[in-house]
Amino acid sequence: MSRNASHQTWGGRFAEGPDARVAAFTESVSFDSRLAAHDIRGSIAHARMLANVGVLSQEEFESIHDGLKAIAQRIENGDFQWDPALEDVHMNIEARLTEDIGTLGKKLHTGRSRNDQIATDVRLWLRDAIDQLRDELKRLRTALIDLAEREADTIMPGFTHMQVAQPVTFGHHMLAWAAMLARDDDRLADVRRRTNQLPLGAAALAGTTFPVDRGAVAAELGFDGIIDNSLDAVSDRDFVIEFVHAASLVMTHLSRFSEELVLWMSPAFAFAELPDRYCTGSSIMPQKKNPDVAEIVRGKSARVHGHLTALLTLMKGQPLAYNRDNQEDKEPLFDTFDTVLNSVALYADMMPSITVFAANCREAARKGFATATDLADYLVRKGVAFRDAHEIVGKSVHHAIDQGCDLAELPLQTLQEFSSHIEDDVYEVLTLEGSVEARDHIGGTAPAQVRAAAARARAHL
Amino acid sequence: MSRNASHQTWGGRFAEGPDARVAAFTESVSFDSRLAAHDIRGSIAHARMLANVGVLSQEEFESIHDGLKAIAQRIENGDFQWDPALEDVHMNIEARLTEDIGTLGKKLHTGRSRNDQIATDVRLWLRDAIDQLRDELKRLRTALIDLAEREADTIMPGFTHMQVAQPVTFGHHMLAWAAMLARDDDRLADVRRRTNQLPLGAAALAGTTFPVDRGAVAAELGFDGIIDNSLDAVSDRDFVIEFVHAASLVMTHLSRFSEELVLWMSPAFAFAELPDRYCTGSSIMPQKKNPDVAEIVRGKSARVHGHLTALLTLMKGQPLAYNRDNQEDKEPLFDTFDTVLNSVALYADMMPSITVFAANCREAARKGFATATDLADYLVRKGVAFRDAHEIVGKSVHHAIDQGCDLAELPLQTLQEFSSHIEDDVYEVLTLEGSVEARDHIGGTAPAQVRAAAARARAHL
Amino acid sequence: MSRNASHQTWGGRFAEGPDARVAAFTESVSFDSRLAAHDIRGSIAHARMLANVGVLSQEEFESIHDGLKAIAQRIENGDFQWDPALEDVHMNIEARLTEDIGTLGKKLHTGRSRNDQIATDVRLWLRDAIDQLRDELKRLRTALIDLAEREADTIMPGFTHMQVAQPVTFGHHMLAWAAMLARDDDRLADVRRRTNQLPLGAAALAGTTFPVDRGAVAAELGFDGIIDNSLDAVSDRDFVIEFVHAASLVMTHLSRFSEELVLWMSPAFAFAELPDRYCTGSSIMPQKKNPDVAEIVRGKSARVHGHLTALLTLMKGQPLAYNRDNQEDKEPLFDTFDTVLNSVALYADMMPSITVFAANCREAARKGFATATDLADYLVRKGVAFRDAHEIVGKSVHHAIDQGCDLAELPLQTLQEFSSHIEDDVYEVLTLEGSVEARDHIGGTAPAQVRAAAARARAHL
Amino acid sequence: MSRNASHQTWGGRFAEGPDARVAAFTESVSFDSRLAAHDIRGSIAHARMLANVGVLSQEEFESIHDGLKAIAQRIENGDFQWDPALEDVHMNIEARLTEDIGTLGKKLHTGRSRNDQIATDVRLWLRDAIDQLRDELKRLRTALIDLAEREADTIMPGFTHMQVAQPVTFGHHMLAWAAMLARDDDRLADVRRRTNQLPLGAAALAGTTFPVDRGAVAAELGFDGIIDNSLDAVSDRDFVIEFVHAASLVMTHLSRFSEELVLWMSPAFAFAELPDRYCTGSSIMPQKKNPDVAEIVRGKSARVHGHLTALLTLMKGQPLAYNRDNQEDKEPLFDTFDTVLNSVALYADMMPSITVFAANCREAARKGFATATDLADYLVRKGVAFRDAHEIVGKSVHHAIDQGCDLAELPLQTLQEFSSHIEDDVYEVLTLEGSVEARDHIGGTAPAQVRAAAARARAHL
Repeated sequence: MSRNASHQTWGGRFAEGPDARVAAFTESVSFDSRLAAHDIRGSIAHARMLANVGVLSQEEFESIHDGLKAIAQRIENGDFQWDPALEDVHMNIEARLTEDIGTLGKKLHTGRSRNDQIATDVRLWLRDAIDQLRDELKRLRTALIDLAEREADTIMPGFTHMQVAQPVTFGHHMLAWAAMLARDDDRLADVRRRTNQLPLGAAALAGTTFPVDRGAVAAELGFDGIIDNSLDAVSDRDFVIEFVHAASLVMTHLSRFSEELVLWMSPAFAFAELPDRYCTGSSIMPQKKNPDVAEIVRGKSARVHGHLTALLTLMKGQPLAYNRDNQEDKEPLFDTFDTVLNSVALYADMMPSITVFAANCREAARKGFATATDLADYLVRKGVAFRDAHEIVGKSVHHAIDQGCDLAELPLQTLQEFSSHIEDDVYEVLTLEGSVEARDHIGGTAPAQVRAAAARARAHL
Repeated sequence: MSRNASHQTWGGRFAEGPDARVAAFTESVSFDSRLAAHDIRGSIAHARMLANVGVLSQEEFESIHDGLKAIAQRIENGDFQWDPALEDVHMNIEARLTEDIGTLGKKLHTGRSRNDQIATDVRLWLRDAIDQLRDELKRLRTALIDLAEREADTIMPGFTHMQVAQPVTFGHHMLAWAAMLARDDDRLADVRRRTNQLPLGAAALAGTTFPVDRGAVAAELGFDGIIDNSLDAVSDRDFVIEFVHAASLVMTHLSRFSEELVLWMSPAFAFAELPDRYCTGSSIMPQKKNPDVAEIVRGKSARVHGHLTALLTLMKGQPLAYNRDNQEDKEPLFDTFDTVLNSVALYADMMPSITVFAANCREAARKGFATATDLADYLVRKGVAFRDAHEIVGKSVHHAIDQGCDLAELPLQTLQEFSSHIEDDVYEVLTLEGSVEARDHIGGTAPAQVRAAAARARAHL
Repeated sequence: MSRNASHQTWGGRFAEGPDARVAAFTESVSFDSRLAAHDIRGSIAHARMLANVGVLSQEEFESIHDGLKAIAQRIENGDFQWDPALEDVHMNIEARLTEDIGTLGKKLHTGRSRNDQIATDVRLWLRDAIDQLRDELKRLRTALIDLAEREADTIMPGFTHMQVAQPVTFGHHMLAWAAMLARDDDRLADVRRRTNQLPLGAAALAGTTFPVDRGAVAAELGFDGIIDNSLDAVSDRDFVIEFVHAASLVMTHLSRFSEELVLWMSPAFAFAELPDRYCTGSSIMPQKKNPDVAEIVRGKSARVHGHLTALLTLMKGQPLAYNRDNQEDKEPLFDTFDTVLNSVALYADMMPSITVFAANCREAARKGFATATDLADYLVRKGVAFRDAHEIVGKSVHHAIDQGCDLAELPLQTLQEFSSHIEDDVYEVLTLEGSVEARDHIGGTAPAQVRAAAARARAHL
Repeated sequence: MSRNASHQTWGGRFAEGPDARVAAFTESVSFDSRLAAHDIRGSIAHARMLANVGVLSQEEFESIHDGLKAIAQRIENGDFQWDPALEDVHMNIEARLTEDIGTLGKKLHTGRSRNDQIATDVRLWLRDAIDQLRDELKRLRTALIDLAEREADTIMPGFTHMQVAQPVTFGHHMLAWAAMLARDDDRLADVRRRTNQLPLGAAALAGTTFPVDRGAVAAELGFDGIIDNSLDAVSDRDFVIEFVHAASLVMTHLSRFSEELVLWMSPAFAFAELPDRYCTGSSIMPQKKNPDVAEIVRGKSARVHGHLTALLTLMKGQPLAYNRDNQEDKEPLFDTFDTVLNSVALYADMMPSITVFAANCREAARKGFATATDLADYLVRKGVAFRDAHEIVGKSVHHAIDQGCDLAELPLQTLQEFSSHIEDDVYEVLTLEGSVEARDHIGGTAPAQVRAAAARARAHL
């Protein structure tokens, strides 16, 4: 069952190698090989610094540099053989380097440990991942702002409690979505800042006895700063959790969008439609056209929330410094990134081609007494206290429900029975257009405001 | 960007096929192909029933049966080509069947939908998965019971608040672990019962117009019962959540074991050691021997907890009946099973070879006034009220701490200054052996009780 | 800042009492006083047993018994003064007992610890709580079955992906809800069985030196069994987690009901309405009638899921045996119970008074080609392979969409262009009633099947 | 069961008041009354602005202002009667205002809704809460930095995998804790920035028809900006989730500290002790002194993680804009704040009085071959490649274990059998002091570096 310990770089102290099942259970190369390019980038910076401080000769550095570059190329080309028996991405690369350039390869690990190395790799990778995600977010925000301008005048019902509340414009609604994503972008910028700090130099947990120049390594790798405590450098996974949290909010927003798209595409609403290429059908019901992308995005938000739970749970009971539990940080991180990136990208693809059924939106807004608040506000302007106005309108609505008609369909005389302040100018405030246009202040749904807000949002991209 | 819709079995209504990114985002065959054997088993039962009720001819059934068997064989041999463009396991198999046996293959889906089909597949798969997990649990419980018998007399400190509380035996401690796993097994039996119910016949959500005989299908597939409402049959994922919950408790227990093993292998405790083959070393510190399996199991418990969060979140907002969100149930389910099965199996492998350092255990129990409660109980037997006895012993301990010695090391005269009830028989109750043996009732740590409890636990396997 | 240690029953060893902030932070009586009645019940059983085995005299027992009964009465009447300085429910009651009956009160704690005492209290309390919850579930299930019978013939659209899928009856839909709750009840019965096990006798963690008769205590308190390992008895909180998990599923089901009610009460659907007394209004929009109960229940499901996460996280890192972390089990448990009980009770109150707008339901089912599957099945019965039939109907639907009409509105000649197998009997299968009645097997939506299923469900109550 | 609808300010449209159980289930005043001071502050700013834009007269404003101030005073004095029948904090205050100043009170709600009002209240409250938490964090960070300086030279074992890894100093370890909290502070500053945005003016969801001056309100209330979309303003709860996430990380850090304190106070380690006033005892074991504060903080981290799960789950399925589910945001938010504030404050109280047992720490560092890495580094400096040096030391350790001695106890001759590069200067690098002092670079554990890092951390406070 046991293999010889000699494969392992740490085998000197060991009488037997790992049990086969243990090896399979504990290996990480099946997922951390994804970090290879960043691992090599970090190794080169480390080696260059070792040469600069005199631990390696300049020649040794060049040989290591060229060896690593060659390995990087092979990995990129897909002709690198990963070996699970070598545990992880670091050992696979180092072993190959030693094969390629001889004993010199064994010097690369001087003054560092896998503990600070993996932390460096993940931070470098995540920095790039955040940049990529922010690009896709920008594309989606642009699509929503475009849509907001396109549909700045399209009236639809605004809902609270899924009841018709007040009319808004479709464009205004799109800008609400865009606002959520702008906050997401802001949060990701914060996460990036805290991620982009150099752990290398912490070695196993206490620093190293070699005269490392951490500032030089940070500069070469583009880090904003250096983590100032070696124990913290190897044990901290805050940045992973923070990213997954930020992604959880992105997914929460997309889930809310999805909830709305699913409803809007339901025949009960019929507010909008997506092209066939974003939908799928049923194996049994030939008529079905299902908003699958929206549903799956909604479903996948749960997956990311689950990863957040997992990561917080993972970290909360660990004493310092590094424990092997930490290996479990990578799969949820990678899966979170893939999920959120694909979800945002698909929405960015999909939104420009949405068809809005303006007539259906308008008709739905007409139902449900959407302008009742306007009537109350009208009464306030006539001198009635708001609460009393609210009561008067409430009774008018009750009466209209009994009559089976809208407020605007009640004759003036009837309305006047509820309040003598009502005059024939009331019908203007009861129209949808009047209602929407009257909300003419920063943040309001008046079409002019929507256009101004879209311009501001675009300027912030 | 768009592919032709004709690949899809539901394409009739569609003007264009799915966008490539959509296809990649929504496909499930990359993970649900794992259900192939169960899918085929369900299809055969369905087809047989269709033949029995006259929807298919007997000949047609046989042809379908043989075609499916051949596909099953190819899948088992690893020479089946899965095509993501065909979305899922069902469509891959059906398409191949139609290729192999012609138009007849297109009749297989009569009277069913992918909605009831996938529910059936997952239930069949999970039933087998539960059985496999229970087998491994049994193996681990056996190992712990063996160990309990082996170490029934080995005295170690029992901890509360990580402070030495009272002496227990190592065997007694192992039986606490075994008791947790026995509950897990009991829970899994309950989950199995609720899982093992037939959804097939619900079709898309409302049942089918064909005269299906659900009882016959249930009987052939070994289900314990039939789900009695078609909407519920296709939308229910309680059984998935229940399993992941049961697995979360298994992992919680293993995480607690792991926490203890990690401590016991720390030099601060040095209570036990595992063979080198269950440990790994450090890339930088040559002396390290790390309890990696325990750490990773502890870490992986977080992953399973995360899956539970994900699944509850996934389901809670869905209106009936089937929504595409449900596709997200499978990856957490499969990953949960793999994680818990491997973790239990590794512990079952590992525990028999644990070395207990009895002398260290004993020495640790001697520290920390582990027999102070015995002194209080002694005083009670001499007629002192328990609370007063507790107070007396508390003061004696305070005095012993000041003297830097154990209670048993205080001279009789000194002890008597705290209570005149203390006589020279007191030293018997202050020994570790006396303490342990005195807890001689069901559930107590007396070695005789440990052996009796081990025998009962073994009988329950 | 420090108070004298003498308040604490464990003060003998301590040089100073707890810091005031510590006392406030660590006290539990503000929430565990809820366990008082069960605590006293357990203490009486313990004392009676101590008398039976000779540790107390019969007289002592009676005095303790009467003292505890008097305290129970005072607590019930609300004139018991809880003192946070006495930490928890146990110490408050014991201190009062000692005040009332003198030194004898100090004997009550002989042979037990707060560790096994609290475990006993929580188990007794939870057993009662489960029984109460199951009663309310029964009331709600009855309401749903009644409703199913009342609306067995009311046709509504069955949805998948929020698209109209096939017609079902409202009664059938109600039975899907009832089926979920029946499973919940089954699960709660399992939780009750595992909860109803006696921990008392485990004392702090190792058992006690007194000759306790655990069987007698279990019998008096109505426990089904005795926990067979003392370490497990004081450290196990599986039963708490299991209950919260079962409650999470109840809340998930209610959340799904709520999601549907909110939609059904939206003007876009207008399938149903609840009386004003179950709704609330808006402070600004006078016309609003909001389905608040459904929304809050949906919101509260998140709270219970959160408690489940908290409890699993709480337990997963703890070494044996008791740690103070465990104190954190009670608030989530109590809040879960209150939340789920109130939610179920409100639904049980509310559902009988729901008004179903049958005409709206029917009209919605007419939209969206709900009988397209029936047409495919029709073609199969005419000899077309299902997949081909599916394709034919898909194309017909595509054509009908272009024409802006329903399938049933296409002339026979047009339909025959899609398949020559279509004859004039096709229009029967395209009616909603025909569709519903044709699903006439166990679990199907045919009204006769709904009535039969309701009868079965009622028999299972 | 039903009460008259007239209590409710929204009663006009309603035929009956809420059912009593509904009222109890849906009220929020029992917890949102905590927002009263902020609610009143917001109302005053709103009223002042209404007066400035001419919706109220200056006189009306003053009357409302004085009325609200008087109510604020009464609330602060504890003599305000909260009435659950009035639902929430807003309606309780408005009703009282109307009672006090007459009809004019009914004008206060002009141009706003409870939807934007509650969002404003929570943001104001949270801004203050964050400031309060940051103050406590600063106090704790200061305590840790002080401790770092006090114990800059105290040698203890640094652990990885709970195995002795390399010696570090206690001060260095304290700075790792301080570094985590510094990040927490940075995160809270980000949350504060995104929280401190004005929602008022969004009214129910669409803005208002009154000419509100949102900039003036924002300025009076000290907001940094205005939320730019009315739908987003009333539906966004990102800031609540973000705060709970930031608090989850604070608690995760405190939980890790707690894990370490619990271990350090265990007799197996005996690295440190806390004064009796931060500990409690046992009801049964007179000798126990338990680190309860650390354990409860560790336990309470689970509670905050649970709240984060709850809040994400709460929001993810909601379509825009406001839904009543949102009411469930406040209890987890308040409980999170109380928990994290108390936990940080208690640690800040407690840490200055920790006693470090330097001799025990040093002795533990001597065990476990803590300077083995130093030997490897020594060999590298003598020209051996690191991997080869690692292998040589691994074998030396293996030999020392067999001999039952430390590396430093092996005679030079024996060491030289493993490598001829070893000379008699080796014993210097094998000392704990030598090891610690050699890690003399930014982030390293050399006492001089610890002091410099402490100075930097103090400068950043």
